[in-house]
Amino acid sequence: MSENIAVLGLGLMGTALAESLLAAGHRVTVWNRSPAKAGPLVAKGATRADTPAQAVAANPLVIVCLLDYPSSRAVLEDVELAGKVVANLTTGRPAEARELATWVAERGGEYLDGGIMAVPQMIGRPGALILYSGSERSFDRYEQAFAAMAEPRFTGADPGMAPLLDLAMLTGMYGQIAGFLEAAALVTSAKYPLGEFTSSLLVPWLNAMAALQPAWAEKIESGDHATEVSNLEVNRAGMENLVRAFREQGVKPDLLLPMKTVIDQRAARGLGHEGLSGLVEEL
Amino acid sequence: MSENIAVLGLGLMGTALAESLLAAGHRVTVWNRSPAKAGPLVAKGATRADTPAQAVAANPLVIVCLLDYPSSRAVLEDVELAGKVVANLTTGRPAEARELATWVAERGGEYLDGGIMAVPQMIGRPGALILYSGSERSFDRYEQAFAAMAEPRFTGADPGMAPLLDLAMLTGMYGQIAGFLEAAALVTSAKYPLGEFTSSLLVPWLNAMAALQPAWAEKIESGDHATEVSNLEVNRAGMENLVRAFREQGVKPDLLLPMKTVIDQRAARGLGHEGLSGLVEEL
Repeated sequence: MSENIAVLGLGLMGTALAESLLAAGHRVTVWNRSPAKAGPLVAKGATRADTPAQAVAANPLVIVCLLDYPSSRAVLEDVELAGKVVANLTTGRPAEARELATWVAERGGEYLDGGIMAVPQMIGRPGALILYSGSERSFDRYEQAFAAMAEPRFTGADPGMAPLLDLAMLTGMYGQIAGFLEAAALVTSAKYPLGEFTSSLLVPWLNAMAALQPAWAEKIESGDHATEVSNLEVNRAGMENLVRAFREQGVKPDLLLPMKTVIDQRAARGLGHEGLSGLVEEL
Repeated sequence: MSENIAVLGLGLMGTALAESLLAAGHRVTVWNRSPAKAGPLVAKGATRADTPAQAVAANPLVIVCLLDYPSSRAVLEDVELAGKVVANLTTGRPAEARELATWVAERGGEYLDGGIMAVPQMIGRPGALILYSGSERSFDRYEQAFAAMAEPRFTGADPGMAPLLDLAMLTGMYGQIAGFLEAAALVTSAKYPLGEFTSSLLVPWLNAMAALQPAWAEKIESGDHATEVSNLEVNRAGMENLVRAFREQGVKPDLLLPMKTVIDQRAARGLGHEGLSGLVEEL
C-alpha cells in the first residue's frame, strides 16, 4: 500500500530514509532547513515543501529525523498535528521521548519514537533495524511502510523504551569498538598485519564470545553469578597481565582500565569466585 | 599418528587439554602439584607421573599449562629438556614468552608458546583455537597432535607473538564484555526483559558491527581516518547523550567513560571530522 509521508530533516540519515520510502513506491514530501539538500530526492520523485507545516499538511504520517529533540520540537512548533502520526527517529534519551510524546498528544497527534539501529548506508537493506515504542495502533497502521526503511520492531507503549534500547545497543557497540581499538593498537605495536588479525582472529572470536551473552543475561536475571569457567580472580590476574603487557609494548590501555577497576573492586568485596556477569551489580 | 605427550598442570584448562589428547588416542603422561587432580585422567587412560622430570623423561612433547610463567619455569627447573619440545600454553606476556624461550633453548630444548583462545569447555570442539609462535619446525612436527586440542595456528618465529595476539583478542573480548555489562545494566533499569534484549537485539547487532572491523583495520593501516558515516563530532554528541541517559536511569556509565574522554580529546585536536578509527592514534 502506497502511503503519503512527510520526512522532516535531510541529513545523511533523513535522506537515506526518504530514499528508501521513495524506492518502495510511497509518496514522499520532504523538508529541510537548507533546501538544497532536497534536490537529489526531488530528482527521485519527492515533493519539496517550503515549511514543515506545508510538508505535514498533506501527509498523515510524519517522519522526523533531526539533530536532536529540541530541534524536533522547534520544527514541529507551528505545525498542525491533530490526527497526524509523528514518528520521531531522532536520536535522544528516554526522558526526551516521553516529553515529546506528551507534547504531541496535547496537540492531538499520535506519537511513536524510533531508534535506528543502522548507519545510513544500511537503510533499505537487510540487517537494518528500527525499534519503535509509543502508540501501538500507529505502529500497526504503518508497519508496512516502516518496513521499507528497515525491519520495524515494536518494543512497548512507553515512548522511552525504543530510545533506551537503542542507547543500550549503542552502549554494547561502543564497548566492542573500545576493545577493537585497544586490540588494534597492541597488534600494530608488534607490527603484525592488522587486517589479517582482525578478519581471521578477532572477528570470529568476538562472534563466538557474543554467543555466550544470552547465558550471561540469564545469570544477571537470576542474580546467580556462580561460574565454573573463569571467575573474577582469574580475570583479575588476566587483566593485571594485560595492562602490564600494554605498557611493555608502549600502548595506553586507557579504554580498558575501568573494567580492571570494577573487577578489582568486586573481588575486594570477597566475590572473586563469581563470574564476570556479577560486575553488572557494580554499575 | 599417536604421540607420547607430557601434560604439566591439571587445572581446568590443563585437564581439558589432556582429555582431548587422550580422546584422540595419544599416550599422555600427566603431572600436577596436587596429585589428586590426575585421578579422573588416569581413569581415562593417562599415566600419572610423580615429578615433572619423570613426566618429561618418557615424552618428547611437553605441554605446560600452569598458573603463570614463573610457575612454568619453576616446574621445568629440574627437568632434562635436551631434545624436548616445550609447548607452553600458560597465559602470559610477550616479554615472558621470549625469556622462557631463551631459557629452554639454553637447556637444549625447542620452544613453542601458545595462546589458547577458548574456555576449557570448548577444548577439543570446533571453534576452539590455539595460536602458536616460536619454533616453526616443532609446530610442523606436532601440528596434528595439537589439532586434537583446538585448531592450531602458527603466527611467527617470535615466541612473543602468540601471547601478544592472545592478549589482543582478550582485549577485544573485555571491551565487548564491558559494553554488554553496561547495556545490561541500562536495560535492567528499565525492566525490559534482558534475555530477549540480548538474544534478539544485542547479539545480532554486535555481529553486524564486528563485520565492519576489517574495514576499520584498513583505515588504521592506511592512516586515513576519513569517514562518510558517523564522524567524531556525531559520536561526541551521541556519547554525551548516552552518559546523560545512564545517569537519568540511575546507572553508572563508568566502563564507557574513557571512550568518551578519548573522543572528546581527539575532537578537541580539531579532528572531529574523522571517524572513530582515528582514536587508535590516541592510545
